[in-house]
Amino acid sequence: MQYPAPISKLIEGFMKLPGIGPKTASRLAFHVLNMKEDDVLEFAKALVNAKRDLTHCSVCYYITDKDPCLICDDSQRDRSVICVVEDSKDVMALEKMQEYRGQYHVLHGAISPMDGIGPEDIRMAELIKRLQDDTIKEVMVATNPSIEGEATAMYLSRMIKPTGIRVTRLAHGLPVGGDLEYADEVTLSRAVEGRREL
Amino acid sequence: MQYPAPISKLIEGFMKLPGIGPKTASRLAFHVLNMKEDDVLEFAKALVNAKRDLTHCSVCYYITDKDPCLICDDSQRDRSVICVVEDSKDVMALEKMQEYRGQYHVLHGAISPMDGIGPEDIRMAELIKRLQDDTIKEVMVATNPSIEGEATAMYLSRMIKPTGIRVTRLAHGLPVGGDLEYADEVTLSRAVEGRREL
Repeated sequence: MQYPAPISKLIEGFMKLPGIGPKTASRLAFHVLNMKEDDVLEFAKALVNAKRDLTHCSVCYYITDKDPCLICDDSQRDRSVICVVEDSKDVMALEKMQEYRGQYHVLHGAISPMDGIGPEDIRMAELIKRLQDDTIKEVMVATNPSIEGEATAMYLSRMIKPTGIRVTRLAHGLPVGGDLEYADEVTLSRAVEGRREL
Repeated sequence: MQYPAPISKLIEGFMKLPGIGPKTASRLAFHVLNMKEDDVLEFAKALVNAKRDLTHCSVCYYITDKDPCLICDDSQRDRSVICVVEDSKDVMALEKMQEYRGQYHVLHGAISPMDGIGPEDIRMAELIKRLQDDTIKEVMVATNPSIEGEATAMYLSRMIKPTGIRVTRLAHGLPVGGDLEYADEVTLSRAVEGRREL
């Protein structure tokens, strides 16, 4: 005995999403059955539209529905700094801070020899090409503080430094509001290493 | 600075689902962007179809795409027992056991005076009507072991017993594979109360 086909298919659909197992998928599917038909239609449309209308900005490779994207197109922003991130989501995180007013470059991945991902598999060549523009004075590397992110940062630094452009990396240290007691050794050692005069 | 409209809408759509907050919603939305277009279309179609094609069986109120549902329509099943559950998902859980071969009745809720849900707000009248059929010998109450489920079970027992039909309730006790140490007092006291000869 199985669920009727339409609900089984919906459950399968939800199960393809990350972090959603059979139990959660069936809970979500049953929730959909109790939603208003208009809301379901709108959600289905949002899915299709997001997939169809979104593309990557031809300059910075951030997701966008216009090309160039709103950030690259904004004449108020500082064109001398490029912040390099792994993922479009990271752009959003940095924008939330409302302090950085420069440009971005989304690599769509990080160098990971273990997974066979080299510089040619991410948007690295496109970044190097952008740097030929004389207005760029600084590249701020904001890849994740993971092994892959660090490897990418090292690679970038080696590639870019010879050109005379400043290469910076986001500081490592204790997260604000965190507890010293729970900080791991590596973070703590980085925090000590990067200590500043008060 | 916001995400482009198509992705914001998709994130909002995911956030309407139960247990999905802003972080998970944006993770899911970005996952959709990386999915194959066909898979996204299929998922969107599954959403709409599930909402459009599924209805409740006019006999037992289980979700179905045919009326009467496969269970009510199955002549091999025992028509003398009706198992009363709160939700369509509960039917599936009982069917997985592959031991029960009777009929079902889905109440679509439970009596809950705190939330203002009375017997008239759930499919209670429809159940009472089904019981006028002489073939029914037993009503097995499988509502949840919660306050609302127990209240519903009590109500059913009072309504049905005078008609001479047997009313039974699923046993309470220790879950198989569970640990006595972690059982709560109420479950333990029910397990002692319901102890059986070995």
